[in-house]
Amino acid sequence: MAKEPKQLDELFLDTLKDIYFAEKKILATLPKLAKAAQSPDLQKAFEKHRGETEGHVTRLEKVFGAIDKKPQAKTCDAIVGITAEGTEIMKEYKGSPALDAGLLAAAQAVEHYEISRYGTLKTWAEELGLDEVVRLLDQTLEEEKKTDAALTKIAETVVNQQAEAA
Amino acid sequence: MAKEPKQLDELFLDTLKDIYFAEKKILATLPKLAKAAQSPDLQKAFEKHRGETEGHVTRLEKVFGAIDKKPQAKTCDAIVGITAEGTEIMKEYKGSPALDAGLLAAAQAVEHYEISRYGTLKTWAEELGLDEVVRLLDQTLEEEKKTDAALTKIAETVVNQQAEAA
Repeated sequence: MAKEPKQLDELFLDTLKDIYFAEKKILATLPKLAKAAQSPDLQKAFEKHRGETEGHVTRLEKVFGAIDKKPQAKTCDAIVGITAEGTEIMKEYKGSPALDAGLLAAAQAVEHYEISRYGTLKTWAEELGLDEVVRLLDQTLEEEKKTDAALTKIAETVVNQQAEAA
Repeated sequence: MAKEPKQLDELFLDTLKDIYFAEKKILATLPKLAKAAQSPDLQKAFEKHRGETEGHVTRLEKVFGAIDKKPQAKTCDAIVGITAEGTEIMKEYKGSPALDAGLLAAAQAVEHYEISRYGTLKTWAEELGLDEVVRLLDQTLEEEKKTDAALTKIAETVVNQQAEAA
């Protein structure tokens, strides 16, 4: 049974399922990160991003709707790996002054993965002429970039404070 | 046997081992990506980045040397997951006009992971007062950013060409 080779619209859909899985995984992981964080600024940043991530999930459901597909998640090995590293840091650095620095590193790896995925999806949506989808993906992309910048700022402060306290 | 909580220098070393594993994994994956790529521009970009990645591995060995440690790799679940997605795309999109778009997406996810890791390591090295290490990490960080920008440019061209050919 010879199959037609998959096209860009299918690659778009496969990758959409991948980031839908990733956002849900991140939504489940953020409360754990917030609970583990020592710095109140970092706790607040994780809680704020949890709210935003709920919005990203809803927005992805709108993207599925815009291309007449039901929202469906597909295991994303990358985000499984990245969040596993975060969980490892929570265990290994519990009680350490370096814990927050480690949590921040894990969160920034997550943000960069998302920035890469949303950037890719946006390029493909433009090519496929999906204007409404481009708009939706761009909103999330900009929020992820802002979160990454906010985390970078906290990272500089947190690492300094911990070094001074040590 | 109570252990002292781990400090920032240990977090730095753990993360250095993680990116050392990642760079070696990427070095092994790039020839496969180059072989699979359809566009000559993309093939060349992967081959060029393979050469750069060899330099990144050597540079990391210098970083280990600068902190009096032997180079050691620690399995990085994130890069295992990201490269697994790339391998899946190679299989699923073989012979498809969307293959290059998929390979580019995988390569950009790799670049973003590295940009995040090198950015984190550089911040910590600054805090730890490791000036020579900061310089080495920054060189690689800048190369990874340039590679990501080059891939973005190819992505826009490749996707356009393939859409026109379809």
